[in-house]
Amino acid sequence: MPVPSTALENLLTRLADIHNLDQSTALLEWDQLVMMPPKGAEARAKQLSTLAKLSHELHVARETQDLLAAAEAEKPGDEDHKAMLRVARRNLDKAIKVPTSLVVALKETTALAHEVWAKARTDNNYPAFAPWLEKLLHLKRQYAAAIDPRKPIYDVLHDDYEEGMTTATLDPLFATLKNETIPFVAAIQEHADRVSEEPLTRDYDPALQQKFAIDILRACGLPFDRARLDTSVHPFCTNFSPNDVRITTRYEKNWLPGALFGVMHEMGHAFYELNINPAYEHTPLSGGVSLGVHESQSRLWENLVGRSRGFWNRFYPHLQQTFHAQLAATPLDTFYKSINRVKPSFIRVEADEVTYNLHIILRYEMEQELLTQKLSVQDAPQRWNEKMRQSLGITPPTDREGILQDVHWSGGGIGYFPTYSLGNILAAQLFQSAKKDLPSLMPDIQSANFAPLYSWLKTHVHHHGRKYPPAQLIPLATGQPLTTEPYLHYLKTKFSEIYEL
Amino acid sequence: MPVPSTALENLLTRLADIHNLDQSTALLEWDQLVMMPPKGAEARAKQLSTLAKLSHELHVARETQDLLAAAEAEKPGDEDHKAMLRVARRNLDKAIKVPTSLVVALKETTALAHEVWAKARTDNNYPAFAPWLEKLLHLKRQYAAAIDPRKPIYDVLHDDYEEGMTTATLDPLFATLKNETIPFVAAIQEHADRVSEEPLTRDYDPALQQKFAIDILRACGLPFDRARLDTSVHPFCTNFSPNDVRITTRYEKNWLPGALFGVMHEMGHAFYELNINPAYEHTPLSGGVSLGVHESQSRLWENLVGRSRGFWNRFYPHLQQTFHAQLAATPLDTFYKSINRVKPSFIRVEADEVTYNLHIILRYEMEQELLTQKLSVQDAPQRWNEKMRQSLGITPPTDREGILQDVHWSGGGIGYFPTYSLGNILAAQLFQSAKKDLPSLMPDIQSANFAPLYSWLKTHVHHHGRKYPPAQLIPLATGQPLTTEPYLHYLKTKFSEIYEL
Repeated sequence: MPVPSTALENLLTRLADIHNLDQSTALLEWDQLVMMPPKGAEARAKQLSTLAKLSHELHVARETQDLLAAAEAEKPGDEDHKAMLRVARRNLDKAIKVPTSLVVALKETTALAHEVWAKARTDNNYPAFAPWLEKLLHLKRQYAAAIDPRKPIYDVLHDDYEEGMTTATLDPLFATLKNETIPFVAAIQEHADRVSEEPLTRDYDPALQQKFAIDILRACGLPFDRARLDTSVHPFCTNFSPNDVRITTRYEKNWLPGALFGVMHEMGHAFYELNINPAYEHTPLSGGVSLGVHESQSRLWENLVGRSRGFWNRFYPHLQQTFHAQLAATPLDTFYKSINRVKPSFIRVEADEVTYNLHIILRYEMEQELLTQKLSVQDAPQRWNEKMRQSLGITPPTDREGILQDVHWSGGGIGYFPTYSLGNILAAQLFQSAKKDLPSLMPDIQSANFAPLYSWLKTHVHHHGRKYPPAQLIPLATGQPLTTEPYLHYLKTKFSEIYEL
Repeated sequence: MPVPSTALENLLTRLADIHNLDQSTALLEWDQLVMMPPKGAEARAKQLSTLAKLSHELHVARETQDLLAAAEAEKPGDEDHKAMLRVARRNLDKAIKVPTSLVVALKETTALAHEVWAKARTDNNYPAFAPWLEKLLHLKRQYAAAIDPRKPIYDVLHDDYEEGMTTATLDPLFATLKNETIPFVAAIQEHADRVSEEPLTRDYDPALQQKFAIDILRACGLPFDRARLDTSVHPFCTNFSPNDVRITTRYEKNWLPGALFGVMHEMGHAFYELNINPAYEHTPLSGGVSLGVHESQSRLWENLVGRSRGFWNRFYPHLQQTFHAQLAATPLDTFYKSINRVKPSFIRVEADEVTYNLHIILRYEMEQELLTQKLSVQDAPQRWNEKMRQSLGITPPTDREGILQDVHWSGGGIGYFPTYSLGNILAAQLFQSAKKDLPSLMPDIQSANFAPLYSWLKTHVHHHGRKYPPAQLIPLATGQPLTTEPYLHYLKTKFSEIYEL
């Protein structure tokens, strides 16, 4: 414990119990997505709801409130001390507003809804999932009303993922992205023939894909004595302590980048959790500060590093060795362009860097319509497809490639999607700052020397955990508030070069 | 809920929460042994101790005691109702005697001791494990004293695993086993050359071993939508509900029976948990009634079925197909004898059916000496080796093959081992009864028709869960109390035939 204060220590002991319960919950959820036999779902839902209930009860108990008040009444300690109290207060003020019954209902419903969604997605059967989406929207509306009935529902929900961010900020940000992206995509599409994805669609043995992915993870510095890689339907990263961080991916035989960049993406998330100040373990400052900042780490490794020319200068020979029959005759330049091909497509997680945010904005708009009941659950697939046509000019052939593709809603993650675009924007902003501080960053990446970048991110982002809210952390790390400028500059430079615009 | 009683229902709701916490604990433990990156151990120990503390606190809380008292005061319901109250009372009476601090200390110490043991075993470094064994013995003595200071420590500890069984019963039972076994082993040893283990030590690709094991599991009826098979250092079976049962094994390239019969062993445990009356889920009657009865199920499938001539009449051709180069030229009779070779050996889990109980009796005696401090932790390895010489005539070359081999002590399982021999005895007794009820049992096994045996065990053992204590269940299932007669008869008949005595 970093602070010698008795009242704070008592509070932290109490919060550590709650934290341990929540980390146990995270393991139960990981297991459900990665390991659990399908028929285990019903009992798992009950286990999760018991843990959620107990965690919530401990959190909102009079005793916790008194411990927090006592700690707040003490003479303030150092900055860490103050930050712990700030975050503990924010968490408790939210938690006491939510009835335990609603916490339990959300946990039980999401555990069951996940199984329904997974089957509905496989079967391309949206009507099977629709009543569960209805239930979840209803519960999330209740949740938002409990926390603050005066605020827009969306702002309340989004604040759980991205502290302090609101639709008032997101609306103009997303308008800029939309305005800049749609014509840029159109300009690229005029020269679509300059880049082909064909090299990526050859036969890539999943077992070899996994082997190569593990080599990349090792080269970038993932410590396997503190981390695991597994397979799941929807790739994700979770952790049960800074020394037990787990990522997942999925392998598709005829789509090489799915697992390859998926793994680098989750690796970025993993680095964040692995590198948080160990003194913050079990305290309110443990974990990444927001999902947007988290996503900046994953997108930075996936795109700024993983889809860079320098990275493949170094790793393409190894890839060619692994997939000799598939790639020996394909030049590096062709491969580099193929992994950066821009084309409107159906699946968000496989979208290119330029069109990606259009997928997010679609979800951002739809979630608001669904939450405010401007749009019915029944009409949502049609609305999805209509919006796909408007922004990307294409229509999903089935709901499997449309509204059923994402795991988030089934897990209660409504109001979560904007953090992906925030991550894209911030990744470029951070990378630009890192480049300023590390003049040899690009040559380092070319020679697989990732340590300087890794250290820079650790120092400026990871180490702080939740100490600074995003609106403070970003200027501390980059010298300015969140801005789309570096991101749009990066996109335009990179893709104008690739498409010779 | 099977009973319409309000007070009982309230009690069961409370106990279900505790049950869900304990099932979550079981998952954390499974994950630690099967999946967790090694550096995750420290945080895992804290998570386990939080869950143990909360479970214990909920269990011994005034509220639980009042709910139980209220349920007991109600007009008695049906037999299930009464059994639930009986088991709930037994559990609570024990739990309230144990201070939460001791529960937490045991949980934390065992989680850390497991990691120390695993490394000590790999490194053949008993001194590294010794201080942890000392700590665990100390905690278990405190535990026994808390529950009942007037009873022998061993009886108190053993009762947690085998309700109602005491050293007063075990001593003569084990004396009989020892007296019958030692001369029988000697008689067999005179004709040791009649059976060779060489066929089992050829090169067996672990991946193919696993494939064959899965085929056997499927043939015997393990439902993979409710079960998993994984790999771990020490094979075990656990479950998080009757619909999520997990078994593990380990594969050794040059020792075929390790995984093969290990898997059938754990499958027997799994069948028990899979087949308990679904109405008992989350109630005090969920789970197997005792470890001895549990072990009877694993030994029955491993030995009475798995090492029978009939079983291999059916499955040996498939095994020969799987390992053509290794077994095509080996006749069935040679193979059958090799898997039933009797020879004093070091490792309990790989011991043959005849010498197995001598391993148990050694541990039974040593545990009593260690608990009563007649033997020091420091002197334990020498004592182990001395006892091995006395009963089996061999001396382990290292502690890895001696005192370090078993996971149990590191997990706090002291007083647990006798249940293995109880399982051996009961397996034969149950199998004899099943044969009386099912005249075509042996031909059924030969034709891979396991359904009649599976059903018989389900009806007479599994279904009841914890409804009847072992001393009631055994006569209900077999018509008589526990007796070594069928077991000794089985051993003598089978091995006299194999060794042509």
